[in-house]
Amino acid sequence: MATEITTIKQAAFKKKVSIHSIIRRPDGGAGLAGQTVKVGGLVKTGREAGKGAFAFIELDDGSCLDSLQLMIYADVKPLHEVTPTGTRLRVEGVLQVPPQDKQRKQRIELRVLKVLHVGSCDSETYPIPKTELKLEGLRDILHLRPRTDTTFACNWHNLFDDLQLVKVDCKMKISAIARIRDELTHATHTFFYDHKFRLVPTPIITSTDCEGAGEMFQVTTLIHDAEKMEKDGHPKPEEGFKMKAGFLPKKDGKVDYGQDFFARQTFLSVSGQLQLEAYACALDNVYTFGPTFRAEHSHTTRHLAEFWMVEPEMADADLEFMVEKYDKNAIRRLQMVASTNFIRISYTEAIKVLEEAVFKGHKFEKKVEWGIDLASEHERYLTEEKFESPVIVYDYPKGIKAFYMKVNPDNKTVAAMDVLVPRVGELIGGSQREEIYDVIKQRMLELGLPLEPYKWYLDLRRYGTVEHSGFGLGFERMVLFATGMDNIKDVIPFPRYPGRADL
Amino acid sequence: MATEITTIKQAAFKKKVSIHSIIRRPDGGAGLAGQTVKVGGLVKTGREAGKGAFAFIELDDGSCLDSLQLMIYADVKPLHEVTPTGTRLRVEGVLQVPPQDKQRKQRIELRVLKVLHVGSCDSETYPIPKTELKLEGLRDILHLRPRTDTTFACNWHNLFDDLQLVKVDCKMKISAIARIRDELTHATHTFFYDHKFRLVPTPIITSTDCEGAGEMFQVTTLIHDAEKMEKDGHPKPEEGFKMKAGFLPKKDGKVDYGQDFFARQTFLSVSGQLQLEAYACALDNVYTFGPTFRAEHSHTTRHLAEFWMVEPEMADADLEFMVEKYDKNAIRRLQMVASTNFIRISYTEAIKVLEEAVFKGHKFEKKVEWGIDLASEHERYLTEEKFESPVIVYDYPKGIKAFYMKVNPDNKTVAAMDVLVPRVGELIGGSQREEIYDVIKQRMLELGLPLEPYKWYLDLRRYGTVEHSGFGLGFERMVLFATGMDNIKDVIPFPRYPGRADL
Repeated sequence: MATEITTIKQAAFKKKVSIHSIIRRPDGGAGLAGQTVKVGGLVKTGREAGKGAFAFIELDDGSCLDSLQLMIYADVKPLHEVTPTGTRLRVEGVLQVPPQDKQRKQRIELRVLKVLHVGSCDSETYPIPKTELKLEGLRDILHLRPRTDTTFACNWHNLFDDLQLVKVDCKMKISAIARIRDELTHATHTFFYDHKFRLVPTPIITSTDCEGAGEMFQVTTLIHDAEKMEKDGHPKPEEGFKMKAGFLPKKDGKVDYGQDFFARQTFLSVSGQLQLEAYACALDNVYTFGPTFRAEHSHTTRHLAEFWMVEPEMADADLEFMVEKYDKNAIRRLQMVASTNFIRISYTEAIKVLEEAVFKGHKFEKKVEWGIDLASEHERYLTEEKFESPVIVYDYPKGIKAFYMKVNPDNKTVAAMDVLVPRVGELIGGSQREEIYDVIKQRMLELGLPLEPYKWYLDLRRYGTVEHSGFGLGFERMVLFATGMDNIKDVIPFPRYPGRADL
Repeated sequence: MATEITTIKQAAFKKKVSIHSIIRRPDGGAGLAGQTVKVGGLVKTGREAGKGAFAFIELDDGSCLDSLQLMIYADVKPLHEVTPTGTRLRVEGVLQVPPQDKQRKQRIELRVLKVLHVGSCDSETYPIPKTELKLEGLRDILHLRPRTDTTFACNWHNLFDDLQLVKVDCKMKISAIARIRDELTHATHTFFYDHKFRLVPTPIITSTDCEGAGEMFQVTTLIHDAEKMEKDGHPKPEEGFKMKAGFLPKKDGKVDYGQDFFARQTFLSVSGQLQLEAYACALDNVYTFGPTFRAEHSHTTRHLAEFWMVEPEMADADLEFMVEKYDKNAIRRLQMVASTNFIRISYTEAIKVLEEAVFKGHKFEKKVEWGIDLASEHERYLTEEKFESPVIVYDYPKGIKAFYMKVNPDNKTVAAMDVLVPRVGELIGGSQREEIYDVIKQRMLELGLPLEPYKWYLDLRRYGTVEHSGFGLGFERMVLFATGMDNIKDVIPFPRYPGRADL
């Protein structure tokens, strides 16, 4: 009884081709003249010509930066239905070489023979302005911004001079950012797959605070439950909240998390690193690539409350191995991002460079001295002014770094490294992890961390410990770096930051 | 000033090879005899022989199901240091063909010349039992379970008979599940990349409830903020919670979410579909592959509170296209999962099949009649008993499906489809989306959904609407299906379910 689907609709869409596949050919599409194709997309602009006898339409399907010109006669479809900006069309037609026109760069256009679909656009209320489109304003209409056709200037750093990317697209469009992000994601997965790293989905909801100091979002069903109880006619809110749902507070003034969904207090993960280490101890080379969260009230162009992070973790590896691997292989595969050599400098040397700059008259807001955490102004000086190159700073003072980092033999610094890149600042932070049980436990006590929640993590040192290392790469920052955009809110489709979680 | 890294440690690990690369050769590794290699991993078992003169160690590095046999003399390292189960070793040695031993299948072993690292294991407290290892118990030690060497029988369905997988590994190990999951993830990304679908990271934190009815986790900083205020010496808890942090309740008894991090009530996403549609309208073919969340108190072997979902969405596509694409291409690429044809049957026909079964004496707990949502028992009858094959059921009654599904011309059913597979039940749910503004708005009003939070979603129909379709695939269920495991909690590294969010 293998029945067939009841209604077989017209299979027109099956031959739909992307605009990219037409106009991004070496001949600009000219070689396809005479072929019948179907395309679909949004009307960027439409203008009538020949006294209303026909119209030219710029159609955009998000497959590339450029649009395809359609030519349609009024007897195929009333022109006012198909020309308004924002209208969605699916059409069939014949590709033809347009008459010579020095102003136009079009080497192919589509003469429309059939209009298969019209999704009209309510022009009067369409919230995308025709002129003066600003990135700030587009952040209020996240659902429509990927279809905007306006390009934005972006700041290509001189690093990119010899890369094709900068020559082809010196301007940026929201849809182009989505495509670049997709390519970078694919390159990231391919790199790790080819190098036999296994992808491990570390948990989003967690009871462990990786950094031991992060501002975390709480995940709960308590408020919801209490609200529902109120709805259901339970005692007045105060009573309901406090007593029935066990929400607020117990006798000692504390929330009773035993009644929460996971029977404990839970948060959104700030990093998958600690859990990843558990898998590195079993599977050697592993990585995670997922969303991470920081409830920090940062109002900068470099921070998001929700961002994606690439975190590899390797057993039997130390920091040098990781850095070398990163340099020689990751960069080779991500040549779209950078083709320059990275400067390597210890933290102590970096401080000397900064002190020298101060001596020569450079002003920093924060005083430069050994032991400080490098501020953005220091990082930018190193990577943008002093070296004009990505810079790897390693061996940081242990006092400013996390508890899990390997203490160096000098007992003053840890085997940590940050990769700083121009305009973006810190792109990557990594370290060798402390594998000696007594040392890491001592470090945790020094920092006043509670041992109980980390018991499982200490177990990894207690039962067959191993030298291992890893790093975290802020994926949106990599996209910033690759696109030349200024604001991180524009390189993720649905940005979350203080006060905003649209859609 | 391109300085070098200060300490260049021994580069021993650089030549470390995986055990897979030795013993999974067609010759079982015999052809490598005489070669010097380095390996690292965990001691599965170790036993002394020759009156303590040497020892045999089974070393496991997570690269494949099998371990490598090490042979080590006592003068290389005291044997009691390297033989306990759970010890982590990195060693260098010479590969040699072991003396003939009919009981052993080893075709190569490593004679250890140097021990480069010993991570000892506290055997007395090591929480992994040597015998009677049960999957249930391992869920209490998530951080150590990937290193367990025990295999578990799993229920291979007869679907897998002609696949190599079932012939090679008829038992399952936690680390093998991690590898299979990794391969499935890679195959998924590769499939979509090759078919020019763009990956869109839909938001995890959201203010939109996709299904309009889901039990959602709330994301908040209010409780945390209130707790901090209390710590800082603000008025007694009740006052602090209610007044200062604006937490509980305002005059009308409601929580003041204006003071929450995002200045509104936010949740963890139950699906990225709605946001994905915004990108499908601009970029045509897109997909998302990320974690989704359900705060349902489900205590089954098929549900998790946090799970990963694959969701493609296509513009200018209708349901038939999607199903065909799924059958012919996805399955061809995921041949590891299944190589069988899928049965296609309408919901109405499915009800007839079930009624026929009842007529013949089959007992169902839930009464079979047109209009019911198919229960697990019905789905299992169709896929396991009647057809013994994956089954696609389409054209469901609109009353039991979500507001966004395309209403069919009969005005009774919607263009929805579910893919049911043996043992797992619903693996995929998909639909053509309603693209007509008036129809979808009317559906939302019928279902009593508030229009305001969905205004952006309605905009997609108002400004250049397009026929589009998509589906969601529960990734852990695919892993269940591919591994033959019984419980979904064992195919995700860090399972979250009511009462449990370990690590």
